[in-house]
Amino acid sequence: MTLRTPLCDLFGIEHPVFLAPMAGVSGGALAAAVSRSGGLGLIGGGYGDADWLAREFDEAGDARIGVGFITWSLSRKPELLDLVLDRAPAVLMLSFGDVQPFLPKLRNTPTKLILQVQTLDQAREALDAGVDAIVAQGTEAGGHGGSRATLPFVPAVVDIAKGIPVIAAGGIADGRGLAAVLALGASGALCGTGFFTSKESLASENAKQAALRGTGDDTERSCVFDLVRGLDWPTNWNIRAMRNNFTQRWSEDIQGLRQNLTEEQARFEAAGAEDDTDIVPVIVGEATDLIQAIEPAHDTLHRIVSQAEDHLRRINRFVERDSKG
Amino acid sequence: MTLRTPLCDLFGIEHPVFLAPMAGVSGGALAAAVSRSGGLGLIGGGYGDADWLAREFDEAGDARIGVGFITWSLSRKPELLDLVLDRAPAVLMLSFGDVQPFLPKLRNTPTKLILQVQTLDQAREALDAGVDAIVAQGTEAGGHGGSRATLPFVPAVVDIAKGIPVIAAGGIADGRGLAAVLALGASGALCGTGFFTSKESLASENAKQAALRGTGDDTERSCVFDLVRGLDWPTNWNIRAMRNNFTQRWSEDIQGLRQNLTEEQARFEAAGAEDDTDIVPVIVGEATDLIQAIEPAHDTLHRIVSQAEDHLRRINRFVERDSKG
Ligand SMILES: Cc1cc2nc3c(=O)[nH]c(=O)nc-3n(C[C@H](O)[C@H](O)[C@H](O)COP(=O)(O)O)c2cc1C
Ligand SMILES: Cc1cc2nc3c(=O)[nH]c(=O)nc-3n(C[C@H](O)[C@H](O)[C@H](O)COP(=O)(O)O)c2cc1C
Repeated sequence: MTLRTPLCDLFGIEHPVFLAPMAGVSGGALAAAVSRSGGLGLIGGGYGDADWLAREFDEAGDARIGVGFITWSLSRKPELLDLVLDRAPAVLMLSFGDVQPFLPKLRNTPTKLILQVQTLDQAREALDAGVDAIVAQGTEAGGHGGSRATLPFVPAVVDIAKGIPVIAAGGIADGRGLAAVLALGASGALCGTGFFTSKESLASENAKQAALRGTGDDTERSCVFDLVRGLDWPTNWNIRAMRNNFTQRWSEDIQGLRQNLTEEQARFEAAGAEDDTDIVPVIVGEATDLIQAIEPAHDTLHRIVSQAEDHLRRINRFVERDSKG
Repeated sequence: MTLRTPLCDLFGIEHPVFLAPMAGVSGGALAAAVSRSGGLGLIGGGYGDADWLAREFDEAGDARIGVGFITWSLSRKPELLDLVLDRAPAVLMLSFGDVQPFLPKLRNTPTKLILQVQTLDQAREALDAGVDAIVAQGTEAGGHGGSRATLPFVPAVVDIAKGIPVIAAGGIADGRGLAAVLALGASGALCGTGFFTSKESLASENAKQAALRGTGDDTERSCVFDLVRGLDWPTNWNIRAMRNNFTQRWSEDIQGLRQNLTEEQARFEAAGAEDDTDIVPVIVGEATDLIQAIEPAHDTLHRIVSQAEDHLRRINRFVERDSKG
């Protein structure tokens, strides 16, 4: 496989594919597996827990990995930034919130900064902050996100990025998606859902099976899981997960959920203990249509890259005749 | 320009680009301009008006064009189907509703049938109906649509289409988008927003200017414009348009709009008479970021195709090194 883009040189990787820092799912083993296979694996720091982070960094061993945080949450535990910078990760990815407070500390580190954005205004702010690359995330993504869709959003971000590499996120789980975002002008892809069912993913067996069974038609964006988990997410963003009994009951009745919160939280916790995916969320995006098996991340990554190469060659035949006259 | 896909042979066209049948926007002049430039132009039959249709077919002259209808609306005026079949359009495109009642009449005509779908279940139904091609429409599209996004939806439809050509719609307004959907496995693109500001488009000058000023961040899906126009759309679909004073006032308060409907309808009608885009909708999708000028449809189409060729060649360089070892 030889698919290389400028992103590969900038980040010292072989394949232009990043593992998304999925909270609770992208642990050290998954991040290391993706990095060792030629991509770049990011540990999902999520809402931030020092012990968990230390353990997962240890788990990754000597693999060259990165880490991601939810920005507004990191603001409440800024000490975690020191903890991870001590590990000298290749990349720090921040999403969802104001990064200004963290910039001074990042300036003199070898760690590259990438910011994930959901609107053109956020993209402009990220570029002003002097990022090494920008992740343009579409609404089809699993997990938290906004309302722009990947296909028209990526080229719009490329048009204002003035040469800063744009990494596309949202909906990319096979080689066709990777080839497509390269055509849009992105330099690579950041994939979450595509690695959710990896052998090394920390998602539960139940959740992986539900993701394999489900289709993209079965996912929706909603705030009910954040509400019941007591996470006070800013309203700019909500979470895409598979529909289940819980979303069916509450997505259209947020007021009702607020009124029954104590009760529902107890029910949710009990369901969590049993890993009952009828109630707890299976956090995947629309690309769940494109995942087919529980397999080592290495196999997924290499299939994505080689399929992208095949598709680039295939579509190139649509223009080839040109040279023949 | 030589970008050709199997769609070109099937529909007897030079470039794999269809003009979307935009209600009130894609008239005979625009459809003819796209067809004469090598694509396939579809008149926007919309909710269906016999006089309007006759006039716009006349306007298209001898250009080889197609026509599209909103299926649930056509069910209420089935006689319009005879009217357009008499014109022997190259293509009939139906969207949003049950096509079963129309199939017998279509069977023995030279007119090809394409159906636009927004979910995998609808795609399966369309394939069962024996379509000539299927349009997989993403939520980023201007006008009515569903909630799946183009990038992950198109390959999922391709995977069940068993060789029936898939045309991608939603978010495609330049050559990058066309190249991307070909990479996803689509055989071509159906573009609405990209031709909204065409010289030949029936959109008003005000609306075209608003579309040029606006960005994709400024659009949203909502039902308020259908409510105030008294169009009883099934709740599966809503309409993407630019945010304006009217959506800001009512999108989060549908109940309130219902309660004030008579008053608001009067206000809406008055605004319509003045073409006041602070109140009446400017119906474009997220791809409005990518449109830059009021120009002949010919120029837009040719720019899309030649940019797609350039981008296919550019990204092919990412894999080229392979053959050199
Ligand atoms: C299970 C899951 C958890 C996620 N958690 C985070 C997170 O903690 N921080 C973050 O920035 N993004 C998170 N995301 C979003 C990813 O960064 C990324 O944008 C997304 O996975 C890309 O879309 P895809 O899922 O279609 O590949 C999560 C995504 C998933 C699927
Ligand atoms: C102004 C406008 C009017 C539309 N009217 C119709 C319509 O009457 N029937 C239909 O099937 N689709 C309609 N659409 C949707 C298009 O068929 C198509 O799916 C869409 O334009 C593709 O996405 P794009 O706008 O990003 O190119 C309309 C779109 C626009 C922008």
